[in-house]
This record gives sequence, C-alpha cells and structure tokens, in this order.
Amino acid sequence: MTRVAVIGAGPSGISVLHAFKSAQNKGAGIPEIVCFEKQNTWGGLWNFTWRTGLDEYGEPVHSSMYRHLWSNGPKECLEFADYSFEEHFGKPISSYPPREVLADYIYGRAEKSGIRNWIHFRHAARWIEYHQEKKVFSVIVHDLVNDCQKRELFDFIIVATGHFSTPNVPEFKGIETFPGRVLHAHDFRDAREFTDQAVLIIGSSYSAEDIGSQCLKFGAKSITASYRTQPMSFHWPFNWENKPQLNKVEDKTVHFCDGSKKAIDAIILCTGYLHHFPFMRDDIRLVATNRLWTPGLYQGIALENNPRVMYLGMQDQFHLYSV
Amino acid sequence: MTRVAVIGAGPSGISVLHAFKSAQNKGAGIPEIVCFEKQNTWGGLWNFTWRTGLDEYGEPVHSSMYRHLWSNGPKECLEFADYSFEEHFGKPISSYPPREVLADYIYGRAEKSGIRNWIHFRHAARWIEYHQEKKVFSVIVHDLVNDCQKRELFDFIIVATGHFSTPNVPEFKGIETFPGRVLHAHDFRDAREFTDQAVLIIGSSYSAEDIGSQCLKFGAKSITASYRTQPMSFHWPFNWENKPQLNKVEDKTVHFCDGSKKAIDAIILCTGYLHHFPFMRDDIRLVATNRLWTPGLYQGIALENNPRVMYLGMQDQFHLYSV
Repeated sequence: MTRVAVIGAGPSGISVLHAFKSAQNKGAGIPEIVCFEKQNTWGGLWNFTWRTGLDEYGEPVHSSMYRHLWSNGPKECLEFADYSFEEHFGKPISSYPPREVLADYIYGRAEKSGIRNWIHFRHAARWIEYHQEKKVFSVIVHDLVNDCQKRELFDFIIVATGHFSTPNVPEFKGIETFPGRVLHAHDFRDAREFTDQAVLIIGSSYSAEDIGSQCLKFGAKSITASYRTQPMSFHWPFNWENKPQLNKVEDKTVHFCDGSKKAIDAIILCTGYLHHFPFMRDDIRLVATNRLWTPGLYQGIALENNPRVMYLGMQDQFHLYSV
Repeated sequence: MTRVAVIGAGPSGISVLHAFKSAQNKGAGIPEIVCFEKQNTWGGLWNFTWRTGLDEYGEPVHSSMYRHLWSNGPKECLEFADYSFEEHFGKPISSYPPREVLADYIYGRAEKSGIRNWIHFRHAARWIEYHQEKKVFSVIVHDLVNDCQKRELFDFIIVATGHFSTPNVPEFKGIETFPGRVLHAHDFRDAREFTDQAVLIIGSSYSAEDIGSQCLKFGAKSITASYRTQPMSFHWPFNWENKPQLNKVEDKTVHFCDGSKKAIDAIILCTGYLHHFPFMRDDIRLVATNRLWTPGLYQGIALENNPRVMYLGMQDQFHLYSV
C-alpha cells in the first residue's frame, strides 16, 4: 500500500489529513497516512506555550504566539467551507476573536474530521532522505516520550512544519553591549513583562504593529519603532515614535541612521522568520524566503525536482488555513 | 588514510585536536582530523553571545554564559599542564578571573597549538550513522554560511558537543498563568534585566547560587530560592530567602509546599541541562544524565556498543578542561 508521511499537525497538516479523510468518506481509496507532530497536541502555532527557546525535550519551541494575541484579520476570511464558526460555537461570534477562540475552532473541526489516530504526537522528524533506486523515502523520527528513534519507509512526503517558528535574528552593531533584554517576536509571551519600559521595536510588519500596540496597552512607557524602508502608516498614540534604521547600540542608547538617539530598556526584534527544514536531505530540502511565490514548488506545493515531496503553506499568505 | 571526525570545537574538542597535534609534533603518525563546529569560532560555552533561543541560522544557541560571569573555581584548578596562565598573560593573575580572561587563555592555547585549519566553523552536524558492513560512518553536516549540506565518510567519530547547552525545563502547575518573565539559566544574559524585581530562582546548584547572587549584586529587590531536597548552606544577605519546592503558580503568586506564598516578578529556572545528541543515529547515540559516572562509556569515553564512537567530557565534572 502507498504510504504518505505528513510532517506536522498544525493548520496545514490538519488540512491535508482532513482532505484525505473527506475523500475516504466519499468512497475514494486513499493511501496509508502517518502524521508526525513534535508537540503534545495539534494546532501548530496555535498550540500556545509559556516556554521559549527549547522545549522540555530540547526541541525548538514551535509556537510564536503570545498570551493576549487577537486575530489581526476578520474571522470571516478564515472560515472553513465545510465547518462554520456558527456550527462550532452554536451562535454568532465577533469578527476578531482572541487566540483561544480561533484555536478552539480549529481543534473542533480537526476533532470532527476523525483524523486524530493518524497523528503520532511527540514525534520529531530527525532525518528524511530519498533512495532514488528504490523510489522510497527513509524517515527517521524521534519518539520524544520514549527517547528512541524509529525508521519507516514512505512513498510520499508532505512537509507541513510551517515557516513562522524559526526566528530571523540579524546582527546590529554594538548590540552585545546592551544591558537590557533583547528578544525576537518569536519569544514574546506577555506584554506585562514590559510595563513601564521604553521599548525599541525593530521592524514594520504585522509583528511590529501587533507587539508594539500590545505593549502600550499593557503599560509600556513608550514604543520606538525602527523601520528599514518606510514607517507603518497608522495614527499612533502620543508615546509611539517611528525612527529609521538602527545604526548602532551603545549601552542603553540606540542610534538611528538620521543621527537621532534614544535611551531604551528593551529591544524586540520583529524581523521575521526563516524557512528552516534541518531534517531534510539537501536534494529534497526547500530553500525559500517568505514571499507570495515560492520558487521551486509546482503549483506552490510539489517540489519540482522531486514531486513526491510536497511542501504546504510555504507562501506569504494572509488566509493561512482556509482550506 | 584513517579519518576522524570531531564534532564541536569547545574545550573538549580543542583538547583532542591539541592531543593529536602534540603527537604529530613528537613524530607520531596521526589520522586525518576534521572538526565541525557550528559556531563562528572556537570556545564552545566560552564563546559568549547576546543571542538566546535560536541563532542567526536557526540553530539552538550553544552558549549558556552571561555577561558578567566570573569563574566559580580557582584558575589553578583549570590550568593546562603545557600552557600556564603566566605564559599566556606574561604576568600572574588573580585566582578567580572573569569570563573573558579565561576565554582568552583557552583561545591562546588553541592558537598556539596550530589546530585552527582542522576546524570547519559554521558547520552544524545534521546526521551521523554507522554502516556496519563497510565499518564506516556517514556524516552529514550543514554548511550554514553557504546553506548546503556535505556528506563525508569517517572511520571514527568523537562527539565533543558538551552537555550544558540544552536546558532541562520542567513543568510547574499553573506556570502558564504567570504574567512575568520565565526563563532558564541557559537564556540568562545580564542581571540588570532584573533590577528592582522580586526574582524566584528554582534550583540549588551552581547556576542557582551564581545567578541569584549576581541578580542581587545588580539590584534585584529580592531572591527567593526554591530547593527540592535541601537549601544551599551559605550565609545569605537579608533579601535572599530559601523556600522548599514550588507547588503551584497563580498569576503573580507562587505557592510552596510548606504552605507559604509570595508575589514574584520573574522566574529563573536553574534546573540543569539535558544530554542531547539529535544528530546521532540511535545505535551510536549516548543516552545519559549529568552524573559522575556515565553508563555505557568505557573509561568514560569510548561507546561500549561501538568503540569507534567516543564522547568527550560527558561526566559531571568540576575541572572541565584541564587536559
């Protein structure tokens, strides 16, 4: 029987499992599906954790969400065609729900799909390679709970591990002299950690806007947002200031390329994420950045130089899980 | 020619390279040595970085040191037999030097050894396995700068990646409700981040004593140190309090198993490290904890079920690099 490995049970992984299950329910023959997920349950980024850096098994923490995150897009753009918000909650809900509400909805549809027993939780992908002569993939996963590796053979690989988990953390001149906290948005968990602080935000995309606003709401003294090309064009409160590119850091003072400077308590790097697949052998490893069109993927999914490997959701998307 | 791969160029890796070079200088025939180091230079833990979590290539940050760390043992116990502190510095120095001074000493001996051209920096080990029939190891490393993998064959593997880089981070009841910062000692960089804060330290070993004292010196309001078996027996300052095991966390309040409770601003987990070798295939992967005697290693070095694999410095040691 044809065997398909799905790596990751976040929104993308769940969607493909759901699609196979739907096809099966309609009478189609489907291959054997085995999904490996390193976290304790499904949901991917939506599986919020207080942890940062490495998790209890030494694996990089997957979730980049913070405690009081709300959706930054209306839920109407995120609704599954076959499972409405109203079906899930039994009543209408507001357009911009908080993190837990959206997570509950995603989990509800996954539960209804009946796909849970295809997923091996707490299994981290270690090494995947293709054997050309046998036309088969060797997949080695680490069973984290039992601390042992397993090797299985598959005919197809679907990589659904996302691209908002490995922070892109550039170097800044003198940042090693800064006495306060420096963190990437990936490790931001609670704005109350920055109450009364003058916070420097580097970046001008979603994370910068979100995290900066959140810090102000929870009592940060001020936000200074440093942009590379142009500032975010919102009407900011009095204690939000936009600055051009950070030039250098000297102790608590940050210098910008327009010659201005400011004393700062903490630096939050909202500098994006890397596409990172350390468990894939080079000939089947996607090399990409966060853009609308991902080179090397036919129809945005099948790896051109080996179409038995598929990557899901690797584009810069707004509607991340409306499949 | 026999080929030996050394994984890691910290104090252990440098020591083994130094030993091969010394033998060569005395006229002995030595194998071909190739060392892979994921960081930008040698030094291992001594290669201090402002980064936490994942580095600029998405690799877990190796160093667990903080900016103002001083040696917690006298330098006389750390001196190399063939390279004295006085030779390096040209004059006597104090017994408890700061981090940079010890690092400079280690680097000085490495430089003198002439081993630098054996080391491939910015090369992370991805996957190592043994081919029984050919008696050879396949080593796949990732060249981080050029973003490509290389595969090479070796006759022996020496793993010198240390065991103080992957934090052991237990779960605590209710910790997900804590609004302040939670971090492991591995991610502690500067005590000034905790000025005026009431800090809870979990643990009663070196890190707990070191980081707690450091925070007080840099103006933390108070230290509360939670022990599991017994408190550290020092004469603490007035604002250091020992408490038994943490029972649960409720918002900012931490409850101990003696029924007492306290309001806390930050939690630092000084809960030790994991032996973690995700790049090794199971049959050559050391499974161990931090103890004086490491099961499965003949003479503390050679892997009993495949002595062509050696692990360096895997014991709980005081004198970490006096070889």
